[in-house]
Amino acid sequence: MILKDTIVALATASGVGAIAVIRLSGPDAITIANDCFNSIKENKSLLDQKSHTLHLGHFMDNNRVIDQVLVSVFKNPHSYTGEDTIEISCHGSLYIQQEIIQILLKQGARMADAGEFTLRAFINGKLDLSQAEAVADLISSDSEASHQVAMQQMRGGFSNEIQNLRDQLINFASLIELELDFAEEDVEFADRTEFKKLVARIQLVLKRLIDSFAVGNVIKNGIPVAIVGEPNVGKSTLLNALLNEERAIVSDIAGTTRDTIEDEIIIDGVAYRFIDTAGIRETKDVVESIGIQKTFEKISQAQVVMYLVDGCQLSVDGKLDDLLLEIRKTKNQFPLKPIIFIINKKDLISPENLSIIDKKLTTNNLQLTTIYISAKSKVGIETLTNELTKMVNIGALNNSDTIVTNSRHYDALLKALNEINKVDEAILNNVSSDLMAIDIRETLYYFGLITGEVTNDDLLGNIFANFCIGK
Amino acid sequence: MILKDTIVALATASGVGAIAVIRLSGPDAITIANDCFNSIKENKSLLDQKSHTLHLGHFMDNNRVIDQVLVSVFKNPHSYTGEDTIEISCHGSLYIQQEIIQILLKQGARMADAGEFTLRAFINGKLDLSQAEAVADLISSDSEASHQVAMQQMRGGFSNEIQNLRDQLINFASLIELELDFAEEDVEFADRTEFKKLVARIQLVLKRLIDSFAVGNVIKNGIPVAIVGEPNVGKSTLLNALLNEERAIVSDIAGTTRDTIEDEIIIDGVAYRFIDTAGIRETKDVVESIGIQKTFEKISQAQVVMYLVDGCQLSVDGKLDDLLLEIRKTKNQFPLKPIIFIINKKDLISPENLSIIDKKLTTNNLQLTTIYISAKSKVGIETLTNELTKMVNIGALNNSDTIVTNSRHYDALLKALNEINKVDEAILNNVSSDLMAIDIRETLYYFGLITGEVTNDDLLGNIFANFCIGK
Repeated sequence: MILKDTIVALATASGVGAIAVIRLSGPDAITIANDCFNSIKENKSLLDQKSHTLHLGHFMDNNRVIDQVLVSVFKNPHSYTGEDTIEISCHGSLYIQQEIIQILLKQGARMADAGEFTLRAFINGKLDLSQAEAVADLISSDSEASHQVAMQQMRGGFSNEIQNLRDQLINFASLIELELDFAEEDVEFADRTEFKKLVARIQLVLKRLIDSFAVGNVIKNGIPVAIVGEPNVGKSTLLNALLNEERAIVSDIAGTTRDTIEDEIIIDGVAYRFIDTAGIRETKDVVESIGIQKTFEKISQAQVVMYLVDGCQLSVDGKLDDLLLEIRKTKNQFPLKPIIFIINKKDLISPENLSIIDKKLTTNNLQLTTIYISAKSKVGIETLTNELTKMVNIGALNNSDTIVTNSRHYDALLKALNEINKVDEAILNNVSSDLMAIDIRETLYYFGLITGEVTNDDLLGNIFANFCIGK
Repeated sequence: MILKDTIVALATASGVGAIAVIRLSGPDAITIANDCFNSIKENKSLLDQKSHTLHLGHFMDNNRVIDQVLVSVFKNPHSYTGEDTIEISCHGSLYIQQEIIQILLKQGARMADAGEFTLRAFINGKLDLSQAEAVADLISSDSEASHQVAMQQMRGGFSNEIQNLRDQLINFASLIELELDFAEEDVEFADRTEFKKLVARIQLVLKRLIDSFAVGNVIKNGIPVAIVGEPNVGKSTLLNALLNEERAIVSDIAGTTRDTIEDEIIIDGVAYRFIDTAGIRETKDVVESIGIQKTFEKISQAQVVMYLVDGCQLSVDGKLDDLLLEIRKTKNQFPLKPIIFIINKKDLISPENLSIIDKKLTTNNLQLTTIYISAKSKVGIETLTNELTKMVNIGALNNSDTIVTNSRHYDALLKALNEINKVDEAILNNVSSDLMAIDIRETLYYFGLITGEVTNDDLLGNIFANFCIGK
């Protein structure tokens, strides 16, 4: 790991903005920046400035003014990376961003790799590994729930829990390894009753963390909801109605646009991923039956299934019966999957038809959750979101429990549990200390993988390659 | 103009980045930020901090941590806007950006209008109006040339020139208006010879500035180049070859993607806009002749015309003759328009065909600039760009002459010239001072419109509405 060079990258989102921030970190950061900087105040050098100060001036390419910039100075170790760091806040044109970075490269900096600033923060002990990983999660978090989980982890909630268990286990490990030195005397320094209690505690915590991964995964990636309905029953209108409030906020602030279907919608701080499917009716030919298979596949991935139907079409002979048959098929295939039956265009259904529909729905024994809406005029949307929120229970989120979202951690936790189970068995079977010590060391190894006490370049490379450039 | 409220906006580009910067400006900026800020150091308040300092802490929504942030403090008048200003550097997730802005709004800030930070800078005398307008140009500049012009203007080059003329004219105006007070005594306080010299100087400068607008416009919007060629002759490949170097840099740094055709390509620091046209041959039916008309329309808008042809196809009987006829038509229609005849896929043309082509090109009297290239293997591209650069003369750019790029300025300059011409005539015809004074005042009015001495809310509204939010 070479930390002698100074790295540079654009830290703000790519594209044109009012301002952009370019970040420079490493032993020569301040010198390199100073070489390109003409302060507004005469004879002011960045080299003489205190940490955490801001300086107005011109960024120069020799005698050519590139931009008026504001330079932040952070001195080792009081920076994100723990190194000398400079942040240059310039006007946000692509040309200026590009020129400034090019000139800094010419002056001796090199382009930062993805996640390299955070990697340096980890190497310099500013963050442990799981905290560093949480930084990437935090940046990509797009709902209250995923933000909360990432924030918890970044602030050390998860590492503290692991670290705490690890410290206790190390204590016992050293006592047990001490016993090995006195093997001939057959002494027991480590209190086996206490040790058994610790192992049980570790097993419990690991199981809880491992179980939380299912929830964590859903929080991170959004709860999959299959939306089954023919074209023109109002799928887009419904998704837009659901998206409505959030979209207004996001697009006002950030100018983002997004697809309505197969995209994420955040409801009450939880992200949902809607999966569009055509339906499973009409099984006339081969092509159709492939379609049905695909629909079932999508439903199987979903946590909730929404059947959306155009209420006006229900007056067509047999249409509702067909639909209920289709829903029954789905129920048979996936007995535990919650289903919401949504009847759209309520305002266009005649009172007679409404009572016919109601009757059919009460006489069938499907016990369907049925909601009437008008997606266009946004009637019934709140009832629908309430129902949805009720169906997806992510209760763990309501307290400050640690939730695992990272599959690397999940993997390490599974392996740690496997090892600690071996230790448990070893105690039970009075296995000799030297064999038990191996299993304990393995458990410690997997704990260390999570917090970063155990690393290698490949592991770090894999982790930080998933970061964005500039962080 | 109310400046009592505190405004907030995202200052960096929209989207997800490593970090984002949220800017808060106005009398309550520091108080509002302090209410949401928990310093890492205990009992540290933003209210007690010096200007141009940076502070690490947590951004809070009551007891909920939204993010770890870095807060910059700028104290009135030492900020961009001239007001108390706070910049919050947070993690770049959309969720966090959104939450922080929402919370600041809840605390009493209001969403900034487009350009409102710069408007405040203007109102507080940090920039004159033409400098403020240059800020928007600077942000949208995407080539060395457009950047240089905007930078010149932002640093006051243009305003100084206008301001200087205005001051001299005001001097004379007051002398001439003084004469009106002594009208009965028929005195001349203003030396008419000196005044004539000044008027001539003003006329000269105005004419130069007005003329520069043609160049300025091209610099700002790119030089239009029509590229005439049938499908599959290699238009996209050629544009990609031209785009190649710049693209590599831009996409590395900013992750931008762009269309290849009908888009801007920067060559030697100058932007070109390529206009795709199908060609003007084959005039068999009505539909075709509409096509021809369109091609001619596009050529008329271009400053340079490139004919691109697949060299292999030139062996087809009569193809080259057809093409030369087509080019002759264009030459007749637009005698002054530079044309480059580009023969692509040079490597695939047999030596015999090459000599036939050469012969035809030398015996026709079109005096065509002909360049052989292979777009795919990037042969001849440099020759082509050199030729292009030669053909588009934007010589004014090489010195520090002021160039007008803003149509509002252009308009005001035209009107000022019109008025000063009237003054010139008035001197010539010995028109009485009171009538001349009116024309002088009109001239001063149009000068004032440029620098912002004369404004009204509508004018400011129009100007700043074109800014991006956050600047």
